[in-house]
Amino acid sequence: MAPVRFLVPAEAGLIALDWGTSALRAFRMGAHGEVLETRHRPWGIMNLPPAAEGVAGPEPNAAFERALQDTCGDWLTTAPGVPLLACGMVGSAQGWREAKYLPTPTSLDELARGLTLVARCDGPPLHIVPGLLQQSALPNVMRGEETQVLGVLADLALPADAQVLIGLPGTHSKWVRARQGRIEQFHTFMTGEVFAALRGHTILGKTMQAAAAPDDDAFARGLEVARGSDAALGLLSHIFSTRTLGLTGALAPTAQADYLSGLLIGHEVASLVRAQDRTQTTPQTLVLCGEPDLCRRYAIALQTYGFAAPTIATQATATGLWEIALAAGLVVAPGPSSSPPKTAGN
Amino acid sequence: MAPVRFLVPAEAGLIALDWGTSALRAFRMGAHGEVLETRHRPWGIMNLPPAAEGVAGPEPNAAFERALQDTCGDWLTTAPGVPLLACGMVGSAQGWREAKYLPTPTSLDELARGLTLVARCDGPPLHIVPGLLQQSALPNVMRGEETQVLGVLADLALPADAQVLIGLPGTHSKWVRARQGRIEQFHTFMTGEVFAALRGHTILGKTMQAAAAPDDDAFARGLEVARGSDAALGLLSHIFSTRTLGLTGALAPTAQADYLSGLLIGHEVASLVRAQDRTQTTPQTLVLCGEPDLCRRYAIALQTYGFAAPTIATQATATGLWEIALAAGLVVAPGPSSSPPKTAGN
Repeated sequence: MAPVRFLVPAEAGLIALDWGTSALRAFRMGAHGEVLETRHRPWGIMNLPPAAEGVAGPEPNAAFERALQDTCGDWLTTAPGVPLLACGMVGSAQGWREAKYLPTPTSLDELARGLTLVARCDGPPLHIVPGLLQQSALPNVMRGEETQVLGVLADLALPADAQVLIGLPGTHSKWVRARQGRIEQFHTFMTGEVFAALRGHTILGKTMQAAAAPDDDAFARGLEVARGSDAALGLLSHIFSTRTLGLTGALAPTAQADYLSGLLIGHEVASLVRAQDRTQTTPQTLVLCGEPDLCRRYAIALQTYGFAAPTIATQATATGLWEIALAAGLVVAPGPSSSPPKTAGN
Repeated sequence: MAPVRFLVPAEAGLIALDWGTSALRAFRMGAHGEVLETRHRPWGIMNLPPAAEGVAGPEPNAAFERALQDTCGDWLTTAPGVPLLACGMVGSAQGWREAKYLPTPTSLDELARGLTLVARCDGPPLHIVPGLLQQSALPNVMRGEETQVLGVLADLALPADAQVLIGLPGTHSKWVRARQGRIEQFHTFMTGEVFAALRGHTILGKTMQAAAAPDDDAFARGLEVARGSDAALGLLSHIFSTRTLGLTGALAPTAQADYLSGLLIGHEVASLVRAQDRTQTTPQTLVLCGEPDLCRRYAIALQTYGFAAPTIATQATATGLWEIALAAGLVVAPGPSSSPPKTAGN
């Protein structure tokens, strides 16, 4: 084993896992919270690797362990005592172990105190970050995004009491109001999943053709419909225009998907504007964190609706997991004589 | 053939076809516009009957003729000169023959003058009713509903200038403003198809269980969310509560489909209210025409939003086809000495 061990620095500080429904992303992090290596596998909790032939019966725990070994078994071998911390749907009822939901508002410290421990046959236990549950007439939940938000907050040099609005666009977009180390309130919009269902499983997809590049004009046209003089007709009516503009030759088949995307994201941002108006205060700082092309679209949409240009955040999940590991004592903050790490200074 | 001929009255006036995407409904109508017999087949234009074995090659026209013969070949044999009139997607680009769209506003007489003729190898031609196209920033189209609307109008004893609002709930709900023999304006909402896509192809369907009977309480709860204090959050946010209310034990799996139905229909009716407000006049007469349980749900929704109880119309398509056949001269109005027919008096 000795030659292998030399390939990985002995001071590796954390194996951090972003473990969702459809994918597993693993980060090998150094003693200062720096990301040394990233791996991406399709082993989401709904798509775990099958057992080798001849191994009998379904064993859910074994499948999670197989996914972990396939993704970072060599990291675990070469740094056998390294702590393991995961966030995301791996903590859902369908995950490796159900991790509790904490109520909002909540803090970094409360999340760090609420980790769920999963013992493993061989090696260190896995810790899972709690999800968040916002109880109200329309409850809201998140698993994984709380960690992204903490990562975003760690990278922002915010005054102690400044509120920030963080958008996490995706299958289920989240919009989170937060302050330094504290998550206060959030909303969920099913924009990404609705787009996929409309494109894949309604008449709207039948006339769509793939475009060579994003059609920003078609996207902007969708945004304008969502906020224009016909806004009152609402989403269920607006989406039909994807088809009728095509039928009348006013929207090319290659433009229809981006037009529909503009309609849906426009409605999401319009709702956000109304919700902001209602709460009477608009945070000064606006951050987007997600897949780059999606963040680009949302940045256009936000500015169309009068918001300032947002900051785009990256690598927030790894940073967030590091922050939680620090707060939980799984890793130790480097002393003042160390070179300052990218993220551990907050 | 003589013995067969006696089975069908010689005075049969019209074979009327309601020919849509997924089904074909045929009406044998008598000389006074009365429905003598109704047949229902799954031969929608996207589901035509296959050729017998050994018959080579795809022949679209032959498949339409097969569907017609399978549905009402005996009617055609026993009354060989009977006129044939169809409405619906059979007149679309994917139908038997593309029938033109007429612009709105339009009248019964304009629709009757715009029939498309399809010659058949053997027997009388098929006439197809035009669709309607409303040109605007967000164009709207219908095929088949124009005929239902004319049927509804024929059955209403409306003052000459009274406007009526007719709702046709379904896959693509239509809301039509009309006057005696005249269609003025309409809107489309993709409510039914969006419901099916959300239930069948998003996470919302995963926790739903079939209910033994419609859950009107859950439906009403969905309506209240669409119009209540959280209305500003909008549809893309509201629908996620189907899942989170389930996760928190506040909505049973058997109640989730009806709750989602209430959310969507509530948003449709809310849009209708806003569109009515904008146009400043609300018709005194409100009619629903469609599948009975769906009309029942929409009647609840409309009254929740402050509309008067709507009239429920039935058999509107057969009546509408008869009205168009009369106006086109395909059939002749009975003389004053005949017994008054149900629908031909308008």
